[in-house]
Amino acid sequence: MKGLLIVISAPSGTGKTTLVNMLMKEIPTLEFSISCTTRKPRPGEVNGKDYYFLSLEEFEKKIENNELLEWAEVYGNFYGTPKDKVLQALKEGKDILLDIDTQGALQVKKNYPDAVLIFILPPSLKELEKRLKKRGTEDPETIERRLLIAHKEISLATKYDYIIVNDQIERAFENLKSIITAERWKTHRIKEQFDEIINDKEMLELLKSGA
Amino acid sequence: MKGLLIVISAPSGTGKTTLVNMLMKEIPTLEFSISCTTRKPRPGEVNGKDYYFLSLEEFEKKIENNELLEWAEVYGNFYGTPKDKVLQALKEGKDILLDIDTQGALQVKKNYPDAVLIFILPPSLKELEKRLKKRGTEDPETIERRLLIAHKEISLATKYDYIIVNDQIERAFENLKSIITAERWKTHRIKEQFDEIINDKEMLELLKSGA
Repeated sequence: MKGLLIVISAPSGTGKTTLVNMLMKEIPTLEFSISCTTRKPRPGEVNGKDYYFLSLEEFEKKIENNELLEWAEVYGNFYGTPKDKVLQALKEGKDILLDIDTQGALQVKKNYPDAVLIFILPPSLKELEKRLKKRGTEDPETIERRLLIAHKEISLATKYDYIIVNDQIERAFENLKSIITAERWKTHRIKEQFDEIINDKEMLELLKSGA
Repeated sequence: MKGLLIVISAPSGTGKTTLVNMLMKEIPTLEFSISCTTRKPRPGEVNGKDYYFLSLEEFEKKIENNELLEWAEVYGNFYGTPKDKVLQALKEGKDILLDIDTQGALQVKKNYPDAVLIFILPPSLKELEKRLKKRGTEDPETIERRLLIAHKEISLATKYDYIIVNDQIERAFENLKSIITAERWKTHRIKEQFDEIINDKEMLELLKSGA
């Protein structure tokens, strides 16, 4: 059976990283997609493990050749999801998880409509503000900028397949797991198994002879 | 939040009744839809509890007035799902379970596209044959007829939203539960909750003043 391409997005402070980590631990067949980037490797980062490190020319070529499921420019560096690696893994039956922003997610859906897009929502913007303040790592201006971006991102959530509200992490996790399980049994995805049953030759003969 | 209309079909001998009973026990918000029928009440059957017992004229009027989500004639009696009762219950946030055949299920989908159609598949037709024989209640001819009907029903399963293979009852049950959970978080279903978050007036003012 082909794997699932799962795309998760959430505003900063929604608890997405925690949920993604729980998910990776729970589902052993789930793999993170390794992005490619034009950013320089940081000390300790390994090519092909943390990122595929590319030159700007190489990256541009990938865009031109339509070899990326999605890409974006962030602070002067380019980041993208290599299409061939993802499609190959899916073909091998692996489930791939992409943890990307709304812009990227919608690009993926366009290039691979079978992707499952899940948006994780904070219980309220006020709650999100509270969580961001609680972190204590960001100044008021950064928090306000994050809230503005959050609001913009949330307004794109209606284009996702699912929206989960993270009001309680265990519940959100259960919902996330259920979505992944359920998606495996979508009719178009189990076609192989289905055809085997419906086209069982021996049985068909038996039915025909009896009819 | 509006309830879910869940429609489950399966060939006889697939284990559907067991799964449906497990589901009713597990999900307290889940309710069985009460069908209407022109069949005479059997001793002990209560109108409005087991069935809504109708005269043929009353039933025909319901068909004409498009008051049934689906209906069928079985051995000279009519059976149908009353639309008003189901829609009212869904509006009240109750989840409704319909346990009907493929013909009925596809009628429901046509009349209420938001219904979630789940087909339960035996692991193979041979396994289904084995299970039917094991029951020991039916003669070979009846078993063969059931297999023929099963094959016809299975060929309509591709029109369902989900196909679950009941190779192991606990696993099938988990998948069934996951589908119901996942469907609650489909984007179009949580619109209310979503609008509340995105249109939070106080927060919008705050964002605007800061922007």
